[in-house]
Amino acid sequence: MQTKRAGRQTVQLSHPPSVVSFANIGGRMEGQGPLSDYFDELSPDAFFGKKTWEQGESAMQERVLRRALEKGGLTAGELDYVLAGDLLNQCIGTSFGLRSFHIPFYGLYGACSTMGESLSLAALLIDGGFARLAAAMTSSHYCTAERQYRMPVPYGSQRTPTAQWTATASGCCILGAQGDGPYITHVTCGRIVDWGITDANNMGAAMAPAAYDTLRAHFTATATGPEDYDLIVTGDLGLLGHQIVTDLFRQDGVDMTKNYTDCGLLLYHLEKQDMHAGGSGCGCSAAVFNGYLLRGLREGRWKRLLFAPTGALLSPTSSFQGESIPGICHAVALSAAKEGV
Amino acid sequence: MQTKRAGRQTVQLSHPPSVVSFANIGGRMEGQGPLSDYFDELSPDAFFGKKTWEQGESAMQERVLRRALEKGGLTAGELDYVLAGDLLNQCIGTSFGLRSFHIPFYGLYGACSTMGESLSLAALLIDGGFARLAAAMTSSHYCTAERQYRMPVPYGSQRTPTAQWTATASGCCILGAQGDGPYITHVTCGRIVDWGITDANNMGAAMAPAAYDTLRAHFTATATGPEDYDLIVTGDLGLLGHQIVTDLFRQDGVDMTKNYTDCGLLLYHLEKQDMHAGGSGCGCSAAVFNGYLLRGLREGRWKRLLFAPTGALLSPTSSFQGESIPGICHAVALSAAKEGV
Repeated sequence: MQTKRAGRQTVQLSHPPSVVSFANIGGRMEGQGPLSDYFDELSPDAFFGKKTWEQGESAMQERVLRRALEKGGLTAGELDYVLAGDLLNQCIGTSFGLRSFHIPFYGLYGACSTMGESLSLAALLIDGGFARLAAAMTSSHYCTAERQYRMPVPYGSQRTPTAQWTATASGCCILGAQGDGPYITHVTCGRIVDWGITDANNMGAAMAPAAYDTLRAHFTATATGPEDYDLIVTGDLGLLGHQIVTDLFRQDGVDMTKNYTDCGLLLYHLEKQDMHAGGSGCGCSAAVFNGYLLRGLREGRWKRLLFAPTGALLSPTSSFQGESIPGICHAVALSAAKEGV
Repeated sequence: MQTKRAGRQTVQLSHPPSVVSFANIGGRMEGQGPLSDYFDELSPDAFFGKKTWEQGESAMQERVLRRALEKGGLTAGELDYVLAGDLLNQCIGTSFGLRSFHIPFYGLYGACSTMGESLSLAALLIDGGFARLAAAMTSSHYCTAERQYRMPVPYGSQRTPTAQWTATASGCCILGAQGDGPYITHVTCGRIVDWGITDANNMGAAMAPAAYDTLRAHFTATATGPEDYDLIVTGDLGLLGHQIVTDLFRQDGVDMTKNYTDCGLLLYHLEKQDMHAGGSGCGCSAAVFNGYLLRGLREGRWKRLLFAPTGALLSPTSSFQGESIPGICHAVALSAAKEGV
């Protein structure tokens, strides 16, 4: 029963599940970014046709799942599980977005690491023989996140230089026991890591230690290093967090400068769009993965990719009560071709 | 790969994971209830020695995991996963409660169904060969839940007759690939069910359709009925929800009156403790399961048990925006003895 485990946090999948279909949706700012061509849908309307921003976020999840099913020629009834969550209190973006599908559902909370967590668990459920097809997805919305975590957008609060921009975006990935790839070969489950950062406007610094912890665990368990991947992509650490991870590895003598980037650096033009430290939110890594990254793998741009979304496990209440900000990061290794494992 | 599935929502475990250890903690009201002898720890202090109620809820999770490890003669380093969540915004009860353990962690949000969801996924990860030992846990706290969902407790708001009492309690169950039982034989994953209930003070009515949906799916997939279980226990439907489930099955010609109860009915003396419709909160089913129910299985009081915690997937924001209350219910079948499967 223990043969699939490779170290404390990593499992090697015995029958690597395949990406069967994927889709993403973005808002106006995402459409003005460098990855705009990699979106299935871009909406200039932040309400997505609904009355409130929260309902708009739910609409994104509903639409992105519908789109991923369509692209894969699948129906909701063929999915054995959907695994999803979001940043909203009680994950209402997910519950209301998915209620009309009637698919067996496990709700997740991994903060902005949710795309990594949902993808990990979907892969494990398939490899374990419990599912033939499973969907992994998440969303975030600039306006719902701002009013929940900071200030309602119309207040026009000044943003600090370390602040990141919560993506208005959603991504969905359908995995299957069969398929033409890319394939999920390894899953590294993160641990909660808290280095005592208390600045709620500096998520990158809070989450970077978790990314470092998970990537290090992954490299150790799989006896690999940065040189074994064509691309390593963390979740939404942004400019500062990406630099911290690079520095931490440098102290270990590991060079991350050649092929390491971050979804928060990829989604927007940082200067031109006035994005400060970069993108954030569950939808940031979800949209980048379910568009730019998966298409790149399919089109042969990369052969082996390590995707490691990060999350900050705080709430406004915990910050008001003087708590620091624990982080988490879940990593998934993908291969364009079927590998002997 | 598909042999473990029995119907749309149910899987039959090929190597039923065993309960290895379990523990629960309750507060003052739980100590005055009929199950007080089934708690490992009862605290008259609602703060659990901390400065805020939220920190108190985290302390419960920390203590209950420590207690379950101790009772099983285990260390945190031996657990391959911990799966947990709670009702607080961004699940901070869990993140802060578990941050000192450094165990690979998947965060869940299943509202009050979280004990069912965490137990389900822990069982699947073990049966899939990804873990040898995994912990499933959750918590709720009367004071943190009240001020988040309704009114801060010191306001002394009047409670409606259909209102339930959020348990101040936590429960942890450690499952293993090996052990002397009880064993988890089947897992039925719930779907989001929304029958349009909008009264946020009537959780029982909102969640009952989901319980009915999941139990019916379980009975169909396993070709069983109420008569095949010594006890069927839903999560925290309370008085009204329990009655609705019984009535819905009666319309199908299925008699649930002989062996069907609900954790929300078991935890308190409804009349004497002025509990209105009964107990609720993630900690309600978690504390009843990880004390009264598992001890009963170990002591031979029941041989086969169906445990089906329920959750209401709402937030104050969704209610303010006129949304109805979707429900979910995850069911786990347990057997005291190892069955040929």
